[in-house]
Amino acid sequence: MSSYCLGVDIGGTKVAAGLVDECGTIRHRTRRDTPDRSRSPQVVEDTIVDAVEELLEVAREEDARVEAIGVGAAGFVGADRATVVFAPHLSWRDEPLQQGLTQRVGLPICVDNDANAAAWAEYCFGAAREETHLVMITLGTGIGGAIVTNGALQRGRFGIAGEFGHMQIVPDGMRCECGNRGCWEQYASGNALVREARALIEARSPVSHDLSARLGGDPSALVGPLITEAARDGDPTARELLTEIGQWLGVGLANLAAAIDPGLFVIGGGVSAAGELLLAPARESFRRRLPGRGYRPEAQIVVAELGPDAGLIGAADLARTSL
Amino acid sequence: MSSYCLGVDIGGTKVAAGLVDECGTIRHRTRRDTPDRSRSPQVVEDTIVDAVEELLEVAREEDARVEAIGVGAAGFVGADRATVVFAPHLSWRDEPLQQGLTQRVGLPICVDNDANAAAWAEYCFGAAREETHLVMITLGTGIGGAIVTNGALQRGRFGIAGEFGHMQIVPDGMRCECGNRGCWEQYASGNALVREARALIEARSPVSHDLSARLGGDPSALVGPLITEAARDGDPTARELLTEIGQWLGVGLANLAAAIDPGLFVIGGGVSAAGELLLAPARESFRRRLPGRGYRPEAQIVVAELGPDAGLIGAADLARTSL
Repeated sequence: MSSYCLGVDIGGTKVAAGLVDECGTIRHRTRRDTPDRSRSPQVVEDTIVDAVEELLEVAREEDARVEAIGVGAAGFVGADRATVVFAPHLSWRDEPLQQGLTQRVGLPICVDNDANAAAWAEYCFGAAREETHLVMITLGTGIGGAIVTNGALQRGRFGIAGEFGHMQIVPDGMRCECGNRGCWEQYASGNALVREARALIEARSPVSHDLSARLGGDPSALVGPLITEAARDGDPTARELLTEIGQWLGVGLANLAAAIDPGLFVIGGGVSAAGELLLAPARESFRRRLPGRGYRPEAQIVVAELGPDAGLIGAADLARTSL
Repeated sequence: MSSYCLGVDIGGTKVAAGLVDECGTIRHRTRRDTPDRSRSPQVVEDTIVDAVEELLEVAREEDARVEAIGVGAAGFVGADRATVVFAPHLSWRDEPLQQGLTQRVGLPICVDNDANAAAWAEYCFGAAREETHLVMITLGTGIGGAIVTNGALQRGRFGIAGEFGHMQIVPDGMRCECGNRGCWEQYASGNALVREARALIEARSPVSHDLSARLGGDPSALVGPLITEAARDGDPTARELLTEIGQWLGVGLANLAAAIDPGLFVIGGGVSAAGELLLAPARESFRRRLPGRGYRPEAQIVVAELGPDAGLIGAADLARTSL
């Protein structure tokens, strides 16, 4: 009889769920759109339960056992791993998610931050399989992150460690949605990449010709993957934009190396699809700033291996581990 | 029969050693000047052995047992807790300190970073007795630091975690001795305090009159404690200088809260003697920048309790713990 754990990854735009085996392989999967944030918190919970019930039915049909459910959520998850303290994209505040879901689906449930779940997956089954001390950076619209030390997730005193994107790296810098200025994610994220490209295009800069042509007259078509594609095709402007993002990425990684001293940085999230176009300048910038460089061992910087499935796989495995 | 551990704290200017009991009390102490860094590494080791032998003799005289020796050193200590990887103030590089000392004194020896030792002392016997997750900041000429999570020191993959002073907080900022620019310790340390005061005095600024008068014509008398004393006496310029240092301190603490999420920051080192003159502006700056402020619990910021003895006490207790 097969034994699965069920992983759920709740992001700002989609809810992904899957049945995951002990080797981190997703055997069945489903997805839903995340309800609009103007809807009540209950609607998100209904969406999760709907996806979970679909997969429990699949497991019943193949006579498999589902041991537990792990939920990774884009937000602050309390140290109790039961409550979502704050999730701006899901209009949750002090939401007792574990309690609500347990009552409705009758299985053990673990709640964690989505970047924690992704880091755990990369540690168990992905790019960090051979490393005990890693820092995960998820480069999406913003920057998420997580810390694994001696094989254990470091959640912090209140459960909110790893919010690297809001470390200030530029005094009086760009305004961030968090209310501060100069946050790292304003300089090294998908949003930063698109913002800089848009500035060139709107100014009708001659260097933005290639990017503009790719939009086909539709400004909303300007997204990170389009810039990455242009860079891969050799557009020097797109390459420069990715180089700048990478250089700022390296600044923050050097700061994290000074504070936390991991053996490995795993770079995930949508922007990491740019691969070496991003990581080569990040490594150079990192090495130029690492305190004690030349007098100490240096952390490696690699791309995540599990892609967008990492959160789902990690959430499921964290639930299994906690049994 | 009394049981002690022997703690040694090796700083850039002095070597402090003491016999420490199980309650963290120093029963006997001695000190030596740190040999000039132009001397060979062996000379520092000789100085340590000399101080240790003096205290072992004291223990013999009162018929007490010395269980182990803990050494806290101002430098990068390897994850093996035996080797000093790099200590610019002691001209050590890959120095096998544990091995050298063990052969000469015949007792178990633990080597650790001095800020790790201080944090451990504050956690066991000082300001962080009731906290499981703390970040220690030692504000001296530079900024040192350490992380305790769930009651365990976090040394990092290579033993070099907690080098907070070299996190870059100002792009293209002030030059730092580490070779980088814009390091936190260039803005929030004793060196920064003295540098800013000196700039005013050398420019013969009218606002520096009180500080100048305290020097008695000797520019080398300008040290941190003199500025703190002027601030305590009400000199508005000295207060402003400490306020600025405190504000920059708060910037870095908010960054560390985002990344590590401790329950408590313990501020030690010489500059922390300024107390609320430093901490009040630090707390205000911290609260203004903390990501998710108002939607999350907040770390407390307090002054260390054990003063300059913390490193010695912590080194001794770490040796006891490792037995």
